[in-house]
Amino acid sequence: MKMNIAILPGDGIGPEIVSQALQVTEAVCKKFGHDLTYKHALVGACAIEQTGNPYPDETHELCMQSDAVLFGAIGDPKYDNNPSAKVRPEQGLLGMRKKLGLYANIRPVTTFETLIHKSPLRTDIVTGTDLMCIRELTGGIYFGRPQGRSEDNNVAFDSCVYSREEIKRIVELAYKYARQRKKKVTIVDKANVLCTSRLWREVAQEIEKQNPDITTEYMFVDNAAMQLIQWPNRFDVIVTENMFGDILTDEASVITGSLGMLPSASIGLHTSVFEPIHGSYPQAAGKDIANPIATILSAALMFEYAFGLMDEGRVIRTAVDESIKAGVVTEDIASGDKSYKTSEVGKWIKEYI
Amino acid sequence: MKMNIAILPGDGIGPEIVSQALQVTEAVCKKFGHDLTYKHALVGACAIEQTGNPYPDETHELCMQSDAVLFGAIGDPKYDNNPSAKVRPEQGLLGMRKKLGLYANIRPVTTFETLIHKSPLRTDIVTGTDLMCIRELTGGIYFGRPQGRSEDNNVAFDSCVYSREEIKRIVELAYKYARQRKKKVTIVDKANVLCTSRLWREVAQEIEKQNPDITTEYMFVDNAAMQLIQWPNRFDVIVTENMFGDILTDEASVITGSLGMLPSASIGLHTSVFEPIHGSYPQAAGKDIANPIATILSAALMFEYAFGLMDEGRVIRTAVDESIKAGVVTEDIASGDKSYKTSEVGKWIKEYI
Ligand SMILES: CC(C)[C@H](C(=O)O)[C@@H](O)C(=O)O
Ligand SMILES: CC(C)[C@H](C(=O)O)[C@@H](O)C(=O)O
Repeated sequence: MKMNIAILPGDGIGPEIVSQALQVTEAVCKKFGHDLTYKHALVGACAIEQTGNPYPDETHELCMQSDAVLFGAIGDPKYDNNPSAKVRPEQGLLGMRKKLGLYANIRPVTTFETLIHKSPLRTDIVTGTDLMCIRELTGGIYFGRPQGRSEDNNVAFDSCVYSREEIKRIVELAYKYARQRKKKVTIVDKANVLCTSRLWREVAQEIEKQNPDITTEYMFVDNAAMQLIQWPNRFDVIVTENMFGDILTDEASVITGSLGMLPSASIGLHTSVFEPIHGSYPQAAGKDIANPIATILSAALMFEYAFGLMDEGRVIRTAVDESIKAGVVTEDIASGDKSYKTSEVGKWIKEYI
Repeated sequence: MKMNIAILPGDGIGPEIVSQALQVTEAVCKKFGHDLTYKHALVGACAIEQTGNPYPDETHELCMQSDAVLFGAIGDPKYDNNPSAKVRPEQGLLGMRKKLGLYANIRPVTTFETLIHKSPLRTDIVTGTDLMCIRELTGGIYFGRPQGRSEDNNVAFDSCVYSREEIKRIVELAYKYARQRKKKVTIVDKANVLCTSRLWREVAQEIEKQNPDITTEYMFVDNAAMQLIQWPNRFDVIVTENMFGDILTDEASVITGSLGMLPSASIGLHTSVFEPIHGSYPQAAGKDIANPIATILSAALMFEYAFGLMDEGRVIRTAVDESIKAGVVTEDIASGDKSYKTSEVGKWIKEYI
């Protein structure tokens, strides 16, 4: 198969971890005889420094022409405590999501047996957790207009907006994935307060009727935030709007104690983007200590979701499992004294494949 | 002291737990020679059934004339899966908050040594947790206008609105409480995305300057959702806007494993309301099995916050601690086979006082 991908390393540890995932991707393509071409492009703080734009037009053009995008992470501390900076790395991320129509962010959250002691939850509670968060990514309060300040500068406002169509496509996606999994969908909203949530529930109730083989449950977001901690293994597929998804997917991703291991896929209208859940971790940048596994597993998701190549995805997963079993892991997840560098872990996995 | 309080039991287990807290309040007033008068009023689903209004005018009048309000819980399952019901119990709660100007909801989250094994978190992580969530309660997306549907009914929208004044008064409150505690304030927002959050941060940065003795930290809401699970004991006072507060305070309240023990205070312009954090728990209603401690501790907060009577609050706290030590607790927190009824626990605490 011909595969044409865009490589967007971004900031902080982004370049280091993406280069490992790229090597793994190349190894898989070689093994299975795929014809891989790729190009690098700028995004985030480094793009601001070099072009003044966190998501330059050339980067966007490249993504539009690609079958898939492998993404690292963005963000730089110098922008974080400066809320009034005019140009910010996050704008690049949000611009990319909107322009590529990345409407669904998918995060499978699984436990790794050997890492379960790293979980902040009690072992008996977290054991067996295997859920998937689906977060709407191009609507809601992130993009709703009007947004701004009153003329006297004393009042600020944001708007949360959702259309039936936006809700429908992502809730349908949730049912599709649930059917391949444990056949349960939890729709998270705040229908007792928000108009947008009531529309979510209305649309979901229609789709529920068309999917009688799937168990549907509705849950208020505050309740979901509790149950994720109390009974994480009661969930299968969780689907929710953008802002709630931002909070709940991050909450869900720490419960297994393996944030450095979790990949994500953002399904788009024009192309799809694959990236680790964790951030740009600037303190570790350039030190060759960051855990590359989340990004390598994002490459596995890329084979599966963007190209429908399930065997290729599985080969990566197996190699990752074996590297963990062999103890070839970075310091964040090492259990003894011995730990490996980012590049050593990547090399081991590549050679295993 | 003359104390005039309104009693709003609400729905589900509300009446049972409030009646225990009221008896404890009476016992304390007797012991300290306070002149207590009180009246009951309707709120929630039971108010809808009897008057058609979840927060009847008579109830509002009573609250306005009271020095403090002791509140149970509201909500009935028959409204939950019916997002389009015109009159809903929650409207009563939101109406009450708005009309009484209850701008700050305060939730101290503490661990109880004897209950720490009930926490879903690992003991080493949760030990020492002692934080206070302060949630803005009358602004933001809960009350922002416009809110509604497009004419063709295909689009729904909500508005999140905050003024400098609304932010200032609650952030100042956070500094005031932090000064009496561990001297650290964490301001939670989403300033990298939302205009309202950027105003929060702007206002907070001004107040920070006036409080150099307090450590200030800014945290994005998604990060806060993670850190609450990973390092709950790093927090002292957390202050945030209404919607984020709804999610984070519920998340925070389950980490100690003692949801049935946690009280809250809602500070208002006209009066203040004291209520347990947990809900109306309809399955347990009328069975005399609900844990009354959260409501009894809410009465302690009432003595302290509404009347500045610190000794009276302390007496209640001590009695509660002793009841736990003596094993006189309801089934949700009992460790052996033996557990007590709601009314038995209330009676024990009252008699101890
Ligand atoms: C950086 C920020 C704008 C972004 C978001 O809120 O979506 C991030 O938190 C994420 O979840 O990808
Ligand atoms: C019942 C609901 C409207 C309410 C809220 O969201 O504020 C509740 O969840 C709470 O936290 O008191």
